[in-house]
Amino acid sequence: MAKDQRNVEAITPMEVDFAKWYTDICLKAELVDYASVKGFMILRPYGYAIWENIQRIMDGMFKKTGHVNVAMPVLIPESLLKKEGELVEGFAPEVAWVTMGGSEKLEERLAFRPTSETMFCDHWHNVLQSYRELPMLYNQWCSVIRWEKTTRPFLRSREFWWQEGHTIHETAEEAIAETEQQLNCYADFCRDALAMPVVKGRKTDKEKFAGAEATYTIEAMMKDHKALQSGTSHYFGDKFSRAYDVTFTGRDNKLQYPFQTSWGSTTRLIGACIMTHSDNNGLVLPPAIAPIQVVVVPVAQHKPGVLDAAAALRDRLTALELRVKMDDSEQSPGWKYAQYEMKGVPLRVEIGPKDMEKQQCCIARRDTGEKVFVPLTELEATVQALLKEVHDNLYAMAEKNLEDNTFDFTTWEEVKEMAQGKGGFARTKWCGSLECELAMKEKAGVSSRCMPLKQSGTVGKCPVCGKECTTDIYWGVAY
Amino acid sequence: MAKDQRNVEAITPMEVDFAKWYTDICLKAELVDYASVKGFMILRPYGYAIWENIQRIMDGMFKKTGHVNVAMPVLIPESLLKKEGELVEGFAPEVAWVTMGGSEKLEERLAFRPTSETMFCDHWHNVLQSYRELPMLYNQWCSVIRWEKTTRPFLRSREFWWQEGHTIHETAEEAIAETEQQLNCYADFCRDALAMPVVKGRKTDKEKFAGAEATYTIEAMMKDHKALQSGTSHYFGDKFSRAYDVTFTGRDNKLQYPFQTSWGSTTRLIGACIMTHSDNNGLVLPPAIAPIQVVVVPVAQHKPGVLDAAAALRDRLTALELRVKMDDSEQSPGWKYAQYEMKGVPLRVEIGPKDMEKQQCCIARRDTGEKVFVPLTELEATVQALLKEVHDNLYAMAEKNLEDNTFDFTTWEEVKEMAQGKGGFARTKWCGSLECELAMKEKAGVSSRCMPLKQSGTVGKCPVCGKECTTDIYWGVAY
Repeated sequence: MAKDQRNVEAITPMEVDFAKWYTDICLKAELVDYASVKGFMILRPYGYAIWENIQRIMDGMFKKTGHVNVAMPVLIPESLLKKEGELVEGFAPEVAWVTMGGSEKLEERLAFRPTSETMFCDHWHNVLQSYRELPMLYNQWCSVIRWEKTTRPFLRSREFWWQEGHTIHETAEEAIAETEQQLNCYADFCRDALAMPVVKGRKTDKEKFAGAEATYTIEAMMKDHKALQSGTSHYFGDKFSRAYDVTFTGRDNKLQYPFQTSWGSTTRLIGACIMTHSDNNGLVLPPAIAPIQVVVVPVAQHKPGVLDAAAALRDRLTALELRVKMDDSEQSPGWKYAQYEMKGVPLRVEIGPKDMEKQQCCIARRDTGEKVFVPLTELEATVQALLKEVHDNLYAMAEKNLEDNTFDFTTWEEVKEMAQGKGGFARTKWCGSLECELAMKEKAGVSSRCMPLKQSGTVGKCPVCGKECTTDIYWGVAY
Repeated sequence: MAKDQRNVEAITPMEVDFAKWYTDICLKAELVDYASVKGFMILRPYGYAIWENIQRIMDGMFKKTGHVNVAMPVLIPESLLKKEGELVEGFAPEVAWVTMGGSEKLEERLAFRPTSETMFCDHWHNVLQSYRELPMLYNQWCSVIRWEKTTRPFLRSREFWWQEGHTIHETAEEAIAETEQQLNCYADFCRDALAMPVVKGRKTDKEKFAGAEATYTIEAMMKDHKALQSGTSHYFGDKFSRAYDVTFTGRDNKLQYPFQTSWGSTTRLIGACIMTHSDNNGLVLPPAIAPIQVVVVPVAQHKPGVLDAAAALRDRLTALELRVKMDDSEQSPGWKYAQYEMKGVPLRVEIGPKDMEKQQCCIARRDTGEKVFVPLTELEATVQALLKEVHDNLYAMAEKNLEDNTFDFTTWEEVKEMAQGKGGFARTKWCGSLECELAMKEKAGVSSRCMPLKQSGTVGKCPVCGKECTTDIYWGVAY
């Protein structure tokens, strides 16, 4: 496609081709572009601005609970990576290897980090001395590489941007509490910043992180009723400490191994946001992470006073510390409306000569398309109220989608029917066996998403083997 | 060295061994640690917190002048890197190559970015259409790899963290103005955030960036009178645009090549700060980038009311949006004083029972060691005034060092004597020939630092060939 065609064509309706609709939005809202290197993506200014907002909010949450940022080397010697067997087995097929430095072949090849547990452990091995230094609550913002075969913007990419938290603690209880705290942090972030409800739960042994004792997850439901794993938090016990010889002198003056966690969330959250809120006119962004929260569009801007009136509105809203843009370019108002709809700007404020006469402006909502005329004196209060309403409405619609498409089933046949039909989350009992989990994949075409933290405690039957059991579990088709 | 010995030993005095003094501070102030992979460094929480402050301030400056952040892929296909001959020649010896993805050998090897001009050009080739979209003012914060043979924390490391700005413009004049603006931005940042004076100038052809038409630099003088290049800004003309086929439809409706700049500054700025301000008691940090600006130390903290009084001071200073820490650990006040001196905290506030009686506290300055007793009612005003004084004093001392050790010379023998003696910057005339520049290296042991933007306009003689010329140039021994 010629480069000047890209923006002109309409996007594919989601009912026609959900995958194409998604990719269209990623490209036409100018969030990402493909790169010359296969499977990699470019975060363009508008996409990166969303990521900056995510980072700022989430980093603030991490710091409030005492976490500090660090930067670990991006390359990991193969011998170091191999010290913990399960981790390297899990990641080896996806590792990119540096084998040459300048013109010289390296004696030992170096892995581009797929995740950094090994580097943190190696550092702690060198510096940790006493229980007085615990806990160490570290985080880093960086990119990682996993050599995926099939890729899609934000959802699965050979390089992606993320934060990885890594902590060590004096006791197992403290480490488990950290794992839970950070899972809740992700869920709260999704609710308050992304207007996205999630199911909090624990992964099965089959689905957990390589090397972890327990993996917790938040699972969100997209508009096509597929699941998107949106953040994970892992408890490692003292397994890595032992493998990497991380020790401290305890209160009893004896050498001990600390207990460890890690937790991560990625640019995938932007993909989650797109597939949770957007529509056939383009992106829909929750106000908390929107690069532009309000766009001011002057109407008949060549008429006397219109540009000044529009600028005055912009300045009043900017004074509220909102992210505001005025578009006084030569494009038509109609072109501008379509443009900022495509870009998902939550509110559009219009003002023209007629509005000026009536001392009013018009405010249009991106989420519902509703327009209201607002006396200029009420601008600030109305905009602030509307931004909150937009957030709440986006959350309510996403919650309805989640609730309407979560089903309680007792047989695998029902689950299969759901998976082959409109999709959704199937909630069943599960006996806990790997066999039955694999059978659900084979027979019903679903993977286990999580055992929700909120367990009903009731007794029922495993939909595969029919054994009596109490564990609730979610199944679905996942990205 | 056993890991529990590290903090106990005193640091090497700078007069005894400047290089060891520097490394001691890096390690004992817990800024960095060495990693298992040779030539790489770990930014520990305290070091990374300094980098976060640098990033926050500098990013704000970039955004004020209309720059936006993006993220480009970290790996560059070899064929793409090779399109511009000078660039790849300059960087090829230092590139780390990824040759394996998972278990498969890649068809084309991929360079870990040493710098990203090629990626930006490739992206612009794909997206740029019209002069209306210009200028594109992009920046990214990331790490890069250059496979250096000898490394030192912050100064020269195989991986380092930096920002790289990349912009394209409709005209050469605009691009040149951008190059100058960003050089001034770096110099202002060094003055206002790092309390560090710099010499602004232009690099000789020999010293300029591979592929650039012109490279501008800021050069700072360290306490050992060596030069540290602390930021560079490059003008490329339309050379890369032509090599990468970046075009736009101009106002005349014809295809044109945009004019390009790039500019970068790195974690090296932390090293610059250490060698500009620190002393034999450890780190000295300018308040703007200090992770902790004020530490509150309770004296005789077991006595009734002391901890509450100290906490009240902490809360009052925190309310000023200062970065404040209270240390109520069980360590002795003497240990704490030494600890926060080592860490370069600009101000220490002490309060004990006697102070409480007198309704006062004691404030100690890190830069001068001065102590003043301050009535509690004057806490806020005094702390704010002192922080400004600390900054101004640090700047004044650094400026004195720069001025006292910058010399006007007319012969290469004088320059040699300086270089072999106490060091410094030698300002001479220069005929402009590569031969004389190389001769200065060989005979006097110095490299050209820059041709200062402030040229005197006087006529003099080249210290090597004796030709009459007007160009002023700085020479020195550089890191």
